[in-house]
Amino acid sequence: MKSSHHCAQLTPSALGASVSLVGWADSIRDHGGILFIDLRDRKGITQVKFDPHVNAELAAQAAQIKPESVIGVSGKVVARPEGTVNKNIPTGGIEVDAIALEIFNISDTPPFPLDDIGGDKVNEDLRLTYRYLDLRRPKMRKNLQVRHKATKAIRDYFDSQEFIEVETPALFKSTPEGAREYLVPSRIHAGQFYALSQSPQQFKQILMVAGVERYFQIARCFRDEDLRADRQMEFTQVDVEASFIDREDVYRIFEGMLKKVWKEVLDVDIPTPFLRMPFVDAMNRFGVDKPDMRFGLELQDVSSIFTNSAFKVFQSTVAGGGVIKAINAKGLADMTQGEIKALEDIAKSLGAKGLAFIKSENGEWKSPIVKFFSDAEKAALTEQLKIEDGDMVFFAAAGWEKACAILGRTRLEAAQLLVKRGKMTIRHDDWKFLWVIEFPLMSFDEENNRYVATHHPFTAPVAEDAQYLDSDPKRVRGQHYDAVLNGMELGGGSIRIHQPAIQKKVFEDVLKIPADVVESRFGYMLKAFTYGAPPHGGIAFGLDRMCALLCGTTSIRDVIAFPKTQKGQDLMAQSPTPVTAKQLKELHIQTVIPQE
Amino acid sequence: MKSSHHCAQLTPSALGASVSLVGWADSIRDHGGILFIDLRDRKGITQVKFDPHVNAELAAQAAQIKPESVIGVSGKVVARPEGTVNKNIPTGGIEVDAIALEIFNISDTPPFPLDDIGGDKVNEDLRLTYRYLDLRRPKMRKNLQVRHKATKAIRDYFDSQEFIEVETPALFKSTPEGAREYLVPSRIHAGQFYALSQSPQQFKQILMVAGVERYFQIARCFRDEDLRADRQMEFTQVDVEASFIDREDVYRIFEGMLKKVWKEVLDVDIPTPFLRMPFVDAMNRFGVDKPDMRFGLELQDVSSIFTNSAFKVFQSTVAGGGVIKAINAKGLADMTQGEIKALEDIAKSLGAKGLAFIKSENGEWKSPIVKFFSDAEKAALTEQLKIEDGDMVFFAAAGWEKACAILGRTRLEAAQLLVKRGKMTIRHDDWKFLWVIEFPLMSFDEENNRYVATHHPFTAPVAEDAQYLDSDPKRVRGQHYDAVLNGMELGGGSIRIHQPAIQKKVFEDVLKIPADVVESRFGYMLKAFTYGAPPHGGIAFGLDRMCALLCGTTSIRDVIAFPKTQKGQDLMAQSPTPVTAKQLKELHIQTVIPQE
Repeated sequence: MKSSHHCAQLTPSALGASVSLVGWADSIRDHGGILFIDLRDRKGITQVKFDPHVNAELAAQAAQIKPESVIGVSGKVVARPEGTVNKNIPTGGIEVDAIALEIFNISDTPPFPLDDIGGDKVNEDLRLTYRYLDLRRPKMRKNLQVRHKATKAIRDYFDSQEFIEVETPALFKSTPEGAREYLVPSRIHAGQFYALSQSPQQFKQILMVAGVERYFQIARCFRDEDLRADRQMEFTQVDVEASFIDREDVYRIFEGMLKKVWKEVLDVDIPTPFLRMPFVDAMNRFGVDKPDMRFGLELQDVSSIFTNSAFKVFQSTVAGGGVIKAINAKGLADMTQGEIKALEDIAKSLGAKGLAFIKSENGEWKSPIVKFFSDAEKAALTEQLKIEDGDMVFFAAAGWEKACAILGRTRLEAAQLLVKRGKMTIRHDDWKFLWVIEFPLMSFDEENNRYVATHHPFTAPVAEDAQYLDSDPKRVRGQHYDAVLNGMELGGGSIRIHQPAIQKKVFEDVLKIPADVVESRFGYMLKAFTYGAPPHGGIAFGLDRMCALLCGTTSIRDVIAFPKTQKGQDLMAQSPTPVTAKQLKELHIQTVIPQE
Repeated sequence: MKSSHHCAQLTPSALGASVSLVGWADSIRDHGGILFIDLRDRKGITQVKFDPHVNAELAAQAAQIKPESVIGVSGKVVARPEGTVNKNIPTGGIEVDAIALEIFNISDTPPFPLDDIGGDKVNEDLRLTYRYLDLRRPKMRKNLQVRHKATKAIRDYFDSQEFIEVETPALFKSTPEGAREYLVPSRIHAGQFYALSQSPQQFKQILMVAGVERYFQIARCFRDEDLRADRQMEFTQVDVEASFIDREDVYRIFEGMLKKVWKEVLDVDIPTPFLRMPFVDAMNRFGVDKPDMRFGLELQDVSSIFTNSAFKVFQSTVAGGGVIKAINAKGLADMTQGEIKALEDIAKSLGAKGLAFIKSENGEWKSPIVKFFSDAEKAALTEQLKIEDGDMVFFAAAGWEKACAILGRTRLEAAQLLVKRGKMTIRHDDWKFLWVIEFPLMSFDEENNRYVATHHPFTAPVAEDAQYLDSDPKRVRGQHYDAVLNGMELGGGSIRIHQPAIQKKVFEDVLKIPADVVESRFGYMLKAFTYGAPPHGGIAFGLDRMCALLCGTTSIRDVIAFPKTQKGQDLMAQSPTPVTAKQLKELHIQTVIPQE
């Protein structure tokens, strides 16, 4: 049996028509001996009726059907009796009076409910083990659709801008100095390995040298990192690179892409151009390089108030070159001891000694530190932080970057507490895009006593800062940019170095990578650059993360058809697994199982 | 400097305009002190003029430019003097009188010429080592464009047919019974491995169980096979699956896709529906399951002529159940001894004892075997094979499949010899599509004394043959289909088994796979099928191969940006490589280098 219509198609305009439908038995109800089956396909649901008074044999056959069985039904479209019309679905005015039935497959009883609410309560491991059932839930079906639509919109956009998609290899060379990578032993070359590509960065720059000019790729990437909630062993990256462009071009191209995606997937117009915020401002105001701008609670620098304070902790921090940052969590004076303790623990995990606070409640300041403050200091704080009754103020006293980071995190936690209390609303679809720009090109790695590239060593310095590459590398800003949405880094990129001599200098003189390592790892790129490399730059962003934001979910596993667990396991197909001795022998390796 | 136009844009309609162009110095010519540079970007070429009489300083600067350097030029569009107009390119009527020059990067001298003809003569290893230069050649640039266009057309087509693209994992579980796979050691699970996905076959069937109904994916796949001319370690597969469909639906969907691709990429209308040919006919007529139908030279069965022959080799073959196949290579009687010997060697490599032939030359048959033929046999041969003077006839006497295969290969070789002699034309753009259908579901593996699936164990039997699954498996035809173009298998697929009991029976009773292996390898699929699996089927085809055919090249390496060599090496970036002891320790493996 084949379908004449899909299950969201039949409306009262089809009354009297002979139709056939195929799909899954979504729900089955018996009303006084008459069997009603909601038949579901990927488009929707249509109610089918089996009446034993009309056809006893057919109704008996239909009685064997269990939920989630696959069936085909042909019959006549009839109006539902008054009072049984379902106005929530397009097919709610009709039902199909069954004349024939084909049972393709009977289903066992699913191990968990397949509706959105029931399924969401289920342990995720169970959902992943039975992913084929989990993916039947309306929410998950929608997520796969959104991902398809978003991906299509991205490809259509870049095609319209004359970018061409070029595939680059997954089997690449090992670069042990970088992030941890997956290795693939070679059978032909005993003792040698490929590494799974962590990103097409080097290949895309090579494509610019090849004269492709406008490249993009939606590429699978692999990183053997410790998996967190929003990480997967393999992830999908939208990777873009173009020649003869500057930062303004990248902003325009990427904003245009996001505009199209948001329009086509959500029918939302996002305003462009995006706000641009230097890294220093992002840290100062939000304590993080990916600020969530859906709410305020901005950080304040109150260092100048405490320059000569009697509160030695603050005074000495300022004297030592540090800063005092503060945040007024408006209306959060009702925080419990437990909540304050939890926040303090987070601050400590970020390197704070504690988390000083002022609770402004019933006309007085409750605080372990306020007794050290002068009246002038109190007045200045009240003025600068606009402290009112009911407010909760937090302080961090430390070096600039650490103080910002501590209060940046405090800000996010405070916002969550306000949301919990109904005092603040943060909507997932309140889209606050921005560019964070002017990152430092290098940061100093205390442990190894050398500079490291903040993003990667191919980023070009800002032109006017290049003169400080030797004398004061920390002062040099990079032509790097991050696209940020609602506290998440959507993507990042940079204008690259295209002159081989400068690239070599950055590798060897600034980053102090030994010349032989530079040669073995990047020698081929430096060589390529001597054959006419154009100025170029680009951006890369995580498709999984973007789809999660579009779907309003916090987990990228909800937008990946077959994700692995946080321990890297495929619970459905069961991997990884031991392999045979023959396989290992062919690959010239053996396993070394650590002793307990 | 940024461009105002691209290098294929300026025509006499722009005379007098001030423009700027960026790109590569394609060629540099000095005519009486005046420097002419062909500036090239991805779109085309524009001639730029530096006249020292107009601006000596600028001309001196331009004189430093070497071919393949990257430059920006601004200037005025002027008409070329009469007699110097190049009518072969759209910009051939104008040139740009340079006013300013920016040199972005000077190029070293490329190690090989970057034109199509010069580059084609270069050793391929050199091209792969300097792939960024090889990809600048017009032919390779076009190939990347064609690949992008074809891929885009495929995605647009499936989207228009309401298929959604779903990504499936590359890191899958090892299934050592199948083709050789790449293994990836797990760091978290000591002693365990992932395998790189050889195809999304199992995931796409699971997606059908999940109710996706219409899935496609352009997926990277990995096989550790011995690399031949048309194989790569990683390749790109267009993978399609749909529910509630039959073979006719698949033919229609896939033909529609190819129609769109050929139209959009080549502006060629290919006629549909395609010819359909049962496997048995393909073997009988062309000696192969992927017939090249651009030329005739069909195989003939001449067994009946030799039933009672005095030529015992033929007679006993027929008596023993074998066949005598023959092919008349019209006009090839001028084959040399060397050519005949080479063809005989090929036949022997396919299991033939020799390659019997008749050379019909100057009114007589020259042949080592014809002396054994009766006049009646000669007359019957002449009649059936339409032997004329100048023809060359080959015979194979063997079991049906072997005889077909030997002459199928002979047919291809003979065609090449006729092409070489100018007696036959085979155009790469003479598109002869067909479906080969009705393959046997199983074939008997003599070595292991059991049946094996001809394609894969998920293929459903043809309904009317299913009754012979137990009694006579060889008689059962599968619902498999191959799409063939000009002697190449473009793709293949099947309608799958969707009933868990039948699938289990095929695994265990027909293919005799031990129950524990079935459980560990396919247990999750059999389980999934008990929860409402719809009837489904699909197709998969190699994108690299299709692009090679579209580009008229015989090597898939010409349509892959960064292919590996036949020894699996990346000659540009240099991989595979040894890795550090630390890396191996983290992955709980060590290498075992075989002794010389």
